[in-house]
Amino acid sequence: MSYVWLNGAIVPATEAKISAFDRGFLFADGIYEVVPIYSGQPFLFDAHMERLERSLREVEIPQPVSRAHWLEIIAQLHAHAPLEHAVLYIHITRGAEFPRNHLPSPNLQPTVMATLSAFTPPVGSIAPARATLMEDIRWLRCDIKSISLLGNIMAKMAAQQDGSIEPLLHRAGRVTEGASSNYFIVKDDVLITAPADTLILPGITRDWVLKLAKKNGISVEERPFSVAELYAADECFLTSSTREIVPIGTVSGQLINDGQCGPITEKLMTCFRNSRPKAVKKVKHENQI
Amino acid sequence: MSYVWLNGAIVPATEAKISAFDRGFLFADGIYEVVPIYSGQPFLFDAHMERLERSLREVEIPQPVSRAHWLEIIAQLHAHAPLEHAVLYIHITRGAEFPRNHLPSPNLQPTVMATLSAFTPPVGSIAPARATLMEDIRWLRCDIKSISLLGNIMAKMAAQQDGSIEPLLHRAGRVTEGASSNYFIVKDDVLITAPADTLILPGITRDWVLKLAKKNGISVEERPFSVAELYAADECFLTSSTREIVPIGTVSGQLINDGQCGPITEKLMTCFRNSRPKAVKKVKHENQI
Repeated sequence: MSYVWLNGAIVPATEAKISAFDRGFLFADGIYEVVPIYSGQPFLFDAHMERLERSLREVEIPQPVSRAHWLEIIAQLHAHAPLEHAVLYIHITRGAEFPRNHLPSPNLQPTVMATLSAFTPPVGSIAPARATLMEDIRWLRCDIKSISLLGNIMAKMAAQQDGSIEPLLHRAGRVTEGASSNYFIVKDDVLITAPADTLILPGITRDWVLKLAKKNGISVEERPFSVAELYAADECFLTSSTREIVPIGTVSGQLINDGQCGPITEKLMTCFRNSRPKAVKKVKHENQI
Repeated sequence: MSYVWLNGAIVPATEAKISAFDRGFLFADGIYEVVPIYSGQPFLFDAHMERLERSLREVEIPQPVSRAHWLEIIAQLHAHAPLEHAVLYIHITRGAEFPRNHLPSPNLQPTVMATLSAFTPPVGSIAPARATLMEDIRWLRCDIKSISLLGNIMAKMAAQQDGSIEPLLHRAGRVTEGASSNYFIVKDDVLITAPADTLILPGITRDWVLKLAKKNGISVEERPFSVAELYAADECFLTSSTREIVPIGTVSGQLINDGQCGPITEKLMTCFRNSRPKAVKKVKHENQI
């Protein structure tokens, strides 16, 4: 049985219902967050919370749950369904209101949902995956982790139809990100990724990988890079909170590094896995580097 | 008491609940439509249905309800709460699925909701309204009437904070549309509106107004027009299915036509009102011009 924390109560997932007049349902008027939990310990929790709180501020939804309360909610969900490793999904909308009106009334009560689902942290080598290049047609505030995701869903579906694990989006030839991931390339031993502007979501894993690279003596550039640079790259990989680091061997049929996982990608995967929280109490992982 | 048709059943609005794992709620994975009903008769029904069916095709959601069935649903809702004039709101999502996953399983059952709410067709003269110019940051498929509306909501909220009834959106100086309306300008007796490409929703009222203008000897141009042209225009108005035609007297503090409703706007408002369905049965309004 799977459980959901919904507006303060824990209910079975099958019984988790919201009003059909929730603004999340009617207008995609909300934001979300995903936090991986290794051995019971939320990874980079404060960074995820900072991003969540920023998303709320940007869309002018009041923060309904404090960081300390989130930790309690995680504990409550764990008590209902213990999981060694888990993914915390948080979903917050501006609230429900009838009748439907684009403009919200002031002081609506936000709808808050959280789920904890089983998570298997990647182990062993990962076969380089295939991505599909496509135009980024999403809005210009991709820095907000909003639930207004139809553009991402359409890109994901198109990538799947192309046999890929993820779209690789670009705007006029400038690579932005995936539909739920960030992309990195390596060229001449330099790690390159798009800058954290309004065209991409500032991935927590993206940021962590940049920190790990710097710590391990790898040169890093956060700057716009082109599709041409991608195709000429020595290595390519994507990052996400649940997939960590996935080597990309093919983009729209074109091989990168002969379809192999490159040495810097390998090294970062190892560093990342070593940085994951272990089953030890009272260790502050945010400052562990 | 307000009623909702939800997946085949009529329920009070307060009891209309959907799964918290509906893809409309999680991913804005759905579309909607709004049909005005004058004196019990859906106005431009086939045009609205064509747009609805196109939206569904574009996002690859199967069409769950036929046109004939929609007419039955309207009758059912009318039977529960008779209204002389009404607005039919239709909301269709790809369906519910647990656990959350960006990629939908095939053959999900779409979630379908419809409401009928009271509508007061505009009468008398309408004071020219204020609009606020702002950058259009939405996605590049605004031709799909999607529920992925956070960008529209943010623009609506910003316009309200500026004391306006609607944002007037532009991309790099090219006027697109409002957050739930289309804009027209008049210059030297020519009616000008943005072309129905992927940057705007092809408004049914927009299209009807273009037809009425042509029928009444007004020259019409569907072409990109700039913010500079807007500010130099002789007249400006917006259209929407529920607001019909609203003269715009001020855009971000700058007067258009000295803040007055112009003669072509006036004329089109009269033509539009004369074209609204009257309380007479079995008249085909789509072909009435």
